[in-house]
Amino acid sequence: MALLVQKFGGSSVADVAAIRRVAQRIVETHRAGHDVAVVVSAMGDTTDELLELAIAISPGPPPEREMDMLLTAGERISMALLAMAIADQGVRARSFTGEQAGMRTDSSHGRARLLSVTPDRVQATLREGAVAIVAGFQGVSEDDDVTTLGRGGSDTTAVALAAALDADVCEIYTDVDGLYTADPRIVPSASRVTRITVEETLEMAAHGAKILHLRAVEYARRFKVPLHVRSSFSDQEGTWILVGRPLTAAVEDPMEDPLISGIAHEKSLGKVTAVGIPDRPGAAAKVVGAVASVGVSIDMIVQNVSTSHSATSDISFTLPESDGARAVAAVRDLQHEMGFADVLYTSHIGKISLVGAGLRSNPDVAHRFFGALAQAGVNIEMISTSEIRISVITDQEHLADAVRSVHTAFNLDADAEAVVYGGTGR
Amino acid sequence: MALLVQKFGGSSVADVAAIRRVAQRIVETHRAGHDVAVVVSAMGDTTDELLELAIAISPGPPPEREMDMLLTAGERISMALLAMAIADQGVRARSFTGEQAGMRTDSSHGRARLLSVTPDRVQATLREGAVAIVAGFQGVSEDDDVTTLGRGGSDTTAVALAAALDADVCEIYTDVDGLYTADPRIVPSASRVTRITVEETLEMAAHGAKILHLRAVEYARRFKVPLHVRSSFSDQEGTWILVGRPLTAAVEDPMEDPLISGIAHEKSLGKVTAVGIPDRPGAAAKVVGAVASVGVSIDMIVQNVSTSHSATSDISFTLPESDGARAVAAVRDLQHEMGFADVLYTSHIGKISLVGAGLRSNPDVAHRFFGALAQAGVNIEMISTSEIRISVITDQEHLADAVRSVHTAFNLDADAEAVVYGGTGR
Repeated sequence: MALLVQKFGGSSVADVAAIRRVAQRIVETHRAGHDVAVVVSAMGDTTDELLELAIAISPGPPPEREMDMLLTAGERISMALLAMAIADQGVRARSFTGEQAGMRTDSSHGRARLLSVTPDRVQATLREGAVAIVAGFQGVSEDDDVTTLGRGGSDTTAVALAAALDADVCEIYTDVDGLYTADPRIVPSASRVTRITVEETLEMAAHGAKILHLRAVEYARRFKVPLHVRSSFSDQEGTWILVGRPLTAAVEDPMEDPLISGIAHEKSLGKVTAVGIPDRPGAAAKVVGAVASVGVSIDMIVQNVSTSHSATSDISFTLPESDGARAVAAVRDLQHEMGFADVLYTSHIGKISLVGAGLRSNPDVAHRFFGALAQAGVNIEMISTSEIRISVITDQEHLADAVRSVHTAFNLDADAEAVVYGGTGR
Repeated sequence: MALLVQKFGGSSVADVAAIRRVAQRIVETHRAGHDVAVVVSAMGDTTDELLELAIAISPGPPPEREMDMLLTAGERISMALLAMAIADQGVRARSFTGEQAGMRTDSSHGRARLLSVTPDRVQATLREGAVAIVAGFQGVSEDDDVTTLGRGGSDTTAVALAAALDADVCEIYTDVDGLYTADPRIVPSASRVTRITVEETLEMAAHGAKILHLRAVEYARRFKVPLHVRSSFSDQEGTWILVGRPLTAAVEDPMEDPLISGIAHEKSLGKVTAVGIPDRPGAAAKVVGAVASVGVSIDMIVQNVSTSHSATSDISFTLPESDGARAVAAVRDLQHEMGFADVLYTSHIGKISLVGAGLRSNPDVAHRFFGALAQAGVNIEMISTSEIRISVITDQEHLADAVRSVHTAFNLDADAEAVVYGGTGR
């Protein structure tokens, strides 16, 4: 008998039929002898509909406290209906708001951070042999106000609950059946990853893979929660995200653990370059600080000396396209003080990232990666690396070709006969 | 400066435009220097839509705890939107769930009774100069579960909040502009009552007048909360329901206080008669007890000795038509034991009630009442009286005629030249 946390997103509970189907899955798990705690999002379009009502009521930005009060009505509806559907199939179920489930947060409405999770009532419900259902995305602040966790909130609720309950696994049900070696919409031959480390998943999520929110993955790593990402429409195994496995395992056991986990990509990026910065210590810190002060997160940053005979350098960084104007203005404010020549901005930038456990220890990887990009006619504008990731910035237009070319170069295509970098069933 | 509780029902907040209109009224009251606490119901059809979802999910009766969780999403949406609409007009507003507003109840889901009201957060909000908005209809149980107060719940929330805040008045906004001397759909010449005692209102509500729920009126009487029932679509004064005014005031000051407050009527009643009950002490108690034990509330009850030369009597009682079958079965179970002759049931029964402060002290009233009914060709089947009410049971078919005839007989018609029983502006 295991203790499972099962998380169902909005598309898994989009309508009455979907809710009944999810209930059936929960009941089957419960009847198999497991303890089940469920985290559920609002039904399908509910959140968008509530947002539209708020915009119709108040053209300006509404008070954030009231926005949280409004939006949390969504999970209240879905979780009560799910509890009813489970009860209708003969298993007792009880739904809990974020507050009732002990999800305490700070007071940052709309983007609250979890401070503590004390799921006493959830545990009591499980002890009684009933199913506990917890509203995703929400908590209660130290002032006893209702808060929401912001983007990726329901995944975070699920992982945090699994950590607090010391669950055996946190199952994330979604409308795809796991993590893929690349986005299947761009690479039709992409294959499902059966196992991946949480660190690799973090790199994938941070560099464009949409399947799990970065924040939930960070939480899973920190609290060592094993995740299983799988489809709510089938019983097939999905992708296991494993915690605490050493990074070198892939190298020690190449037939079990794939070297390359997958290829992530991201578009709609912009690139800002401050040109001809006099070469003084602290220049990069100053630029980064100015951009951070206007609330913009920098993605990649590269500094390079522009010419050998002048003591100036260029600093380039990428960021979401939507933050471009603000970042440019912030950097331009420094131009006079720092004495650099110009500020350049390029939009429609793309990024492709290769993620895998063995990158550091395999010098052939970078060579093969850049070769595949050259073969696809892709010009590399910037490069950044971590121990388990290589990312390059390129123009958006060639991004899909680049992803396909790299996917093939590393023999990740599902129909490929030979799988050079090992792994079964990818 | 006064402290007002303003309650808006579902039809007053049916859509975005209505919510903005209600917000404007609240803002005007606030700008006039008053403290305003608002109680709000779910928007228009929200509750019905949620009920439909529940029925679609679970054909059988769903768990009541989950039904309460589901339905309370309705007020969460309306109160958050109302707070946003008020903020949009430049006045700070904060919404509170039943729990946050200190509405503690027992654990009877779907029909919870208030145990205590401690609106600390509402008071703190008012002290800050902001508007406090409280979700109607809901509370929290001693087990920290969400509860709903059942029918008339939002009115009850408003009156209870007004009592706890020691408000100067509790304004009940609705889609009509007050209490009428009779149902205007049946008596087009019915006129608005400007002032009425809470006791008379209780009799009106208990005998079919739909404007305010009995339970809220009982609460207002118990805690001496003055009510003002008025339209959310106009600034016109409505009906003041006054507390603690002696019943004899009407007689002492006939030009100020009308003798007859109005005529209430009710249809869809049934009548059960146990015929030929041997005349023994406790017979009525036994019959009433059996009916109560199956959860049926008796409305009127009459016992009469059927013939002078036999020691038997008949017991008749009225009840909602929908409870008829259950009540008949319960009484029939007693037939052998008590030895009575038969159980009869009549459906499609109506009731007409004359309510007014001076009925007891004016012997002419009953005479005039029965005369008007006779003139309309209405046959009286049962009569029951209290100090401020006379009710008669008749068939449903003649009910509307009966109401109109009595309304005219007591000169209640708005266009009547002479108003015999006094009163201004009725």
